[in-house]
Amino acid sequence: MRVRRKPGAFEALCEIEPYFVKNPELRKGNWKEVFGNDNPIHAEFGGGKGRFSVEMARMYPNVNFIMADAVTEVALVAAKRMKKAALNNVRLILLDLKNVEDVFSEGELDQIYLNFSDPWPKKRHYKRRLTYRDFLMSYKAVLKSEGWIHFKTDNRSLFQFSLNEFAALDMKMQHISLNLHDESPEGNVMTEYEEKFSKMGHPIYRVETQFRK
Amino acid sequence: MRVRRKPGAFEALCEIEPYFVKNPELRKGNWKEVFGNDNPIHAEFGGGKGRFSVEMARMYPNVNFIMADAVTEVALVAAKRMKKAALNNVRLILLDLKNVEDVFSEGELDQIYLNFSDPWPKKRHYKRRLTYRDFLMSYKAVLKSEGWIHFKTDNRSLFQFSLNEFAALDMKMQHISLNLHDESPEGNVMTEYEEKFSKMGHPIYRVETQFRK
Repeated sequence: MRVRRKPGAFEALCEIEPYFVKNPELRKGNWKEVFGNDNPIHAEFGGGKGRFSVEMARMYPNVNFIMADAVTEVALVAAKRMKKAALNNVRLILLDLKNVEDVFSEGELDQIYLNFSDPWPKKRHYKRRLTYRDFLMSYKAVLKSEGWIHFKTDNRSLFQFSLNEFAALDMKMQHISLNLHDESPEGNVMTEYEEKFSKMGHPIYRVETQFRK
Repeated sequence: MRVRRKPGAFEALCEIEPYFVKNPELRKGNWKEVFGNDNPIHAEFGGGKGRFSVEMARMYPNVNFIMADAVTEVALVAAKRMKKAALNNVRLILLDLKNVEDVFSEGELDQIYLNFSDPWPKKRHYKRRLTYRDFLMSYKAVLKSEGWIHFKTDNRSLFQFSLNEFAALDMKMQHISLNLHDESPEGNVMTEYEEKFSKMGHPIYRVETQFRK
């Protein structure tokens, strides 16, 4: 999705320093400097209002988190949340996820999270789904070879599509769950969507996947 | 599951020739002779009342089908169905699926079907599920290296368990479906269970899986 920079919201975002990183292309290959340490870097693609990345950053102080989203107004909510949390290990960028490789260098990320991505339910829109193979190949380009992609969604069709994309690219899978909250998984950080949909009794689907070498 | 030979039912089965093959161990390595041709051999493990195997045999006259089940009374229903259908390319055996390798030789099967297998929902019974890794390894022993296992169920927990077993054994997967009847799949032959549960609005889960060489 193209980045939508609503004028007011974008200016407001720019003021939320250092959490909002305005020109992420300039950080390509040197994200460690942004955080000032050598800790692993995890990215959440499509992080929405930021709850997941902020809570993960709080829970894992020795991991750096970068949340990316394309929608300025939503990112603004996430930025405010980050400012309030006052954590050193989380940052926010505006990014069209087609351009992941403009912002991260080869193997710069240790892990990627995709949480409740837009299902793009119409068949003709399948190439927009963040688990479509072209997206996956761009994630591969920036992910360490041992790195995992953690994906969760409440959308059955998107999950089915995603499993088939992972299988088509011959990716490894583990911890496949067709109803995450059946198992009250340890350390699961819920997104806003997840809390809402699981309260409504929807199953939450989850999988971890990794490229073969 | 151990073969349960209810006396009356077993005798009745033995009379349904040539559909019921009484001593399948004696056929190990020479199933082609049973059918009198070189056509591929597909097996359904846990075939119940036999609708799937009989309908598949009708639809694919150039494939030989062997249905295995452990419950004599249920197998008797399947045998009667086979007799009524009067097809040359379907046979029935009584078998504890732990002993698959006693009945088939290496690579003797071209394809395996597992349809609506007993979910064994209690955690402590997971080793009884027909997609438990020890079962899978015995299927591997009798399946051609290019052979696929086709698995379908309406049981979400069993499907989740199964996907994780396939992934743990690093098996390939394709055509993963979390709601088979959403797609009105061509050539899908429904079992008795499938018709019942899909009418009740339950999603039917399906996957094809294959061992790596």
